[in-house]
Amino acid sequence: MRSLEGQLHRCAINTATLGHREPLAKTLDRIARAGFGGVAPWRREVEAIGAAAAARHLRALGLTVTGYCRSAYLATCDEAERRANMSANIKALDDAAELGAQCFVLVVGGAHGVKGGLVGARSQVHDGVAELYLEARKRGVPLAIEPLHPTYASDRSVVNTIRQALALCESVAPGDNAMLGLAIDVYHCWWDPDLASSIALAGQAGRILGYHVCDWLADTQDRLMDRGMMGDGVVDLPGFRHLIELAGYRGMVEVEIFSEQRWWKVAPDEVLSVCADRLQSAC
Amino acid sequence: MRSLEGQLHRCAINTATLGHREPLAKTLDRIARAGFGGVAPWRREVEAIGAAAAARHLRALGLTVTGYCRSAYLATCDEAERRANMSANIKALDDAAELGAQCFVLVVGGAHGVKGGLVGARSQVHDGVAELYLEARKRGVPLAIEPLHPTYASDRSVVNTIRQALALCESVAPGDNAMLGLAIDVYHCWWDPDLASSIALAGQAGRILGYHVCDWLADTQDRLMDRGMMGDGVVDLPGFRHLIELAGYRGMVEVEIFSEQRWWKVAPDEVLSVCADRLQSAC
Repeated sequence: MRSLEGQLHRCAINTATLGHREPLAKTLDRIARAGFGGVAPWRREVEAIGAAAAARHLRALGLTVTGYCRSAYLATCDEAERRANMSANIKALDDAAELGAQCFVLVVGGAHGVKGGLVGARSQVHDGVAELYLEARKRGVPLAIEPLHPTYASDRSVVNTIRQALALCESVAPGDNAMLGLAIDVYHCWWDPDLASSIALAGQAGRILGYHVCDWLADTQDRLMDRGMMGDGVVDLPGFRHLIELAGYRGMVEVEIFSEQRWWKVAPDEVLSVCADRLQSAC
Repeated sequence: MRSLEGQLHRCAINTATLGHREPLAKTLDRIARAGFGGVAPWRREVEAIGAAAAARHLRALGLTVTGYCRSAYLATCDEAERRANMSANIKALDDAAELGAQCFVLVVGGAHGVKGGLVGARSQVHDGVAELYLEARKRGVPLAIEPLHPTYASDRSVVNTIRQALALCESVAPGDNAMLGLAIDVYHCWWDPDLASSIALAGQAGRILGYHVCDWLADTQDRLMDRGMMGDGVVDLPGFRHLIELAGYRGMVEVEIFSEQRWWKVAPDEVLSVCADRLQSAC
């Protein structure tokens, strides 16, 4: 496995890592100046300046867009919410196409409040991915389903393992790995007893569209907002990347850290500097 | 599926549900008086009065011991800790035998601090279960591995799914389902996309030794101490019990709720009353 030392051009920063504290243009400048090759911006940042302006800025800086974050939920409480979310997602696909994003990241929604609970939500998600897939194909923007940690099954995502996401891909778009795949995040998947075989299967299917890193802190304080910097937690990050690359993934390594109490209070350039160090020493 | 209405003799209370606020004798009296047929006490409660005294009290009240809680961790930081925990577990097996417990519940320990991380911890757990199984057999006390929610993979258990626990049973004690099986808790397993098939497999193997209920709250505030009362959360409890009974489980339904901020502040008899209601109306 290649080390990431001197390979920051193969690494990307998800803008959530900086806490969304500044306008996108400023954030992109910092990321490019720090030597990273890619970025994953969020909808609200892009929409604030318009996708065309964001795309011009990205091209000028030579940054690859590893993913566009993220879908409105596909599992919803009622039909009105479902339609509103689908519209928002189709608009986001237009923007993702303009940005040249390598994928549009799908966070599918949780079971709470959905008719039929977990089972109903999973059924809605299947139908929602199928509908969005047709729109994504028209625009040439791959969809990347991100399985979230099981702790989010109620409130954020009823797709909770790599294998489950893979089955969903095969059901909705059998054979079309160019347009429907997975974003695999170590935070969500590191615990999985089937991790090695699941990643291998995803790789054989050619469906690994993104790879996200951070760390799981041993004394994690919050289900959402306390992700760790790479190397500060319990995840075997080199081992995980070995599996991902063995499975054929050649894309970027994207850092995504939600950390309200720690890293979002540190100056953005300092966060980027630590990310660069840790990508090269702990991933 | 039989309703639990009028079936409190088929239901048990894990004493953690009452917050360990009173001596065991008082807790047992309350549980028996409320009409429950079983109880799952914790080591510290039993050790405080001695297993012989606890056993006499249990027999006098006619309470079944659905499980004895719980093992010291099998994944440890060093050899000294491993030996200390194994001794504590063997002592607990003696006590479990004296109590006539239907099983000794194994919570196996997390990856944090263990040499080799997640992989090393799982290897230690395998060896630890194998060693403890020999001791359990001598004493006639079945071991019930409890898969814990993946959120605990770092700090409490590297066994996180039913299927993983089942594979561990088959590896350590192939064919011996009388002495090694699973305690299945809805809180830990409800999200599993393979839930139905996993429970069916566990049932076919004859390895379901315990069934625990509570609920996953939609707005859960704490990874450990904010479990919900049955009916207050998102879990399809009747659906879950249907799977468990379809798989052949005929044991008791045990309520186990850790709830520092809510139920542990409510008077014990009131908690038991609500448990009784919800077992009969929401499970």
